[in-house]
Amino acid sequence: MKLLPVFIAAVVLAGVALGVHAQTSQPEPYKVVFDLTSSDPIDQQAVLRWINEVKAVNPRNEAEVVMYGRGLDLVITDKTTRAAEIARAIGDLGASFKVCGIAVKNQKLDRSQLLSNVEIVPDGIGEIVTRQSAGWGYIKVGH
Amino acid sequence: MKLLPVFIAAVVLAGVALGVHAQTSQPEPYKVVFDLTSSDPIDQQAVLRWINEVKAVNPRNEAEVVMYGRGLDLVITDKTTRAAEIARAIGDLGASFKVCGIAVKNQKLDRSQLLSNVEIVPDGIGEIVTRQSAGWGYIKVGH
Amino acid sequence: MKLLPVFIAAVVLAGVALGVHAQTSQPEPYKVVFDLTSSDPIDQQAVLRWINEVKAVNPRNEAEVVMYGRGLDLVITDKTTRAAEIARAIGDLGASFKVCGIAVKNQKLDRSQLLSNVEIVPDGIGEIVTRQSAGWGYIKVGH
Repeated sequence: MKLLPVFIAAVVLAGVALGVHAQTSQPEPYKVVFDLTSSDPIDQQAVLRWINEVKAVNPRNEAEVVMYGRGLDLVITDKTTRAAEIARAIGDLGASFKVCGIAVKNQKLDRSQLLSNVEIVPDGIGEIVTRQSAGWGYIKVGH
Repeated sequence: MKLLPVFIAAVVLAGVALGVHAQTSQPEPYKVVFDLTSSDPIDQQAVLRWINEVKAVNPRNEAEVVMYGRGLDLVITDKTTRAAEIARAIGDLGASFKVCGIAVKNQKLDRSQLLSNVEIVPDGIGEIVTRQSAGWGYIKVGH
Repeated sequence: MKLLPVFIAAVVLAGVALGVHAQTSQPEPYKVVFDLTSSDPIDQQAVLRWINEVKAVNPRNEAEVVMYGRGLDLVITDKTTRAAEIARAIGDLGASFKVCGIAVKNQKLDRSQLLSNVEIVPDGIGEIVTRQSAGWGYIKVGH
């Protein structure tokens, strides 16, 4: 007679327990900005692998790459060997790739020479500092 | 008759509008500490260029270089090729160049062997950590 | 007659003054996480020296090394030349050495191939970001 409400309550409790478990087994989401000033293929490969891993740990994690100095080579159409991986990181994983506008100018590059899915920000260092101020983690890419 | 006050009010309003525009078109000032442990001329050149760019973006931005390990070479009188640029960064741009006192001792250097306009701090890593705690951005120099 | 209380008060005041002096001459303790992705012996030596120096400045300072990518070589038993220094940094200085579990898996390493006194964390980048969020300083090891 009174079994149905008890059953429902048990199911609800079990659901809550599962939900809590799922929440605690999934780590808290975080945001991280990668600082890339290297054109070394090892560093280029590393940052793309790390973005994949950061997103695999928790799809709600956010990742952004800021490129200046020699880091630009990763997104210069004539130089990069990783356009497909970058497209996947942006399209499938929601990562951002941002190029320092000052570096673009210093290197006499035109927007058309860069992969079309990367953004140009006015000041790469300013972008990184702003992210740090907003509580993003910071990782310098290097080895 | 009542046109003068209206004209004055319009001029004041226009001035306020211009002021607001000037404020919003100039990015918020930021502070950044550069961590230099490399003696590579490319890294030495990069940090000096970045200080210039940080200050060009907004003259109210603040920049500091902390040197330890091999980073000291930039300010050892007998080794540096960039004394004039450092003098300009300090004198004209208000940047700070700080050398780790532990590294100075480890490398058996005397104060007289360092450029006279650089400061010695007791603990380079402590200086960087203190800046980070105070909300400064952090950039590792490398490539 | 009333000299004893005055004498006691003077001794207490002197003690307080000394205590305040000792407190102010010792810098505030800080916490720092080192990011090691390099297998270069110069970087391996540097991070161990820095841990010693951080602890020499103030024994209450805390230091942690997070290794991923090529940084793992420092704690792979068959590759490291610094096992004794690491044991001393952990045992005598209270430093932590943490290896990224994703990197361990990527490099097909078994727990038994790593020094037994290092910890494996699920996500090396997540560990660093968490430390940064908790107010730890961040130093990328490189040169």
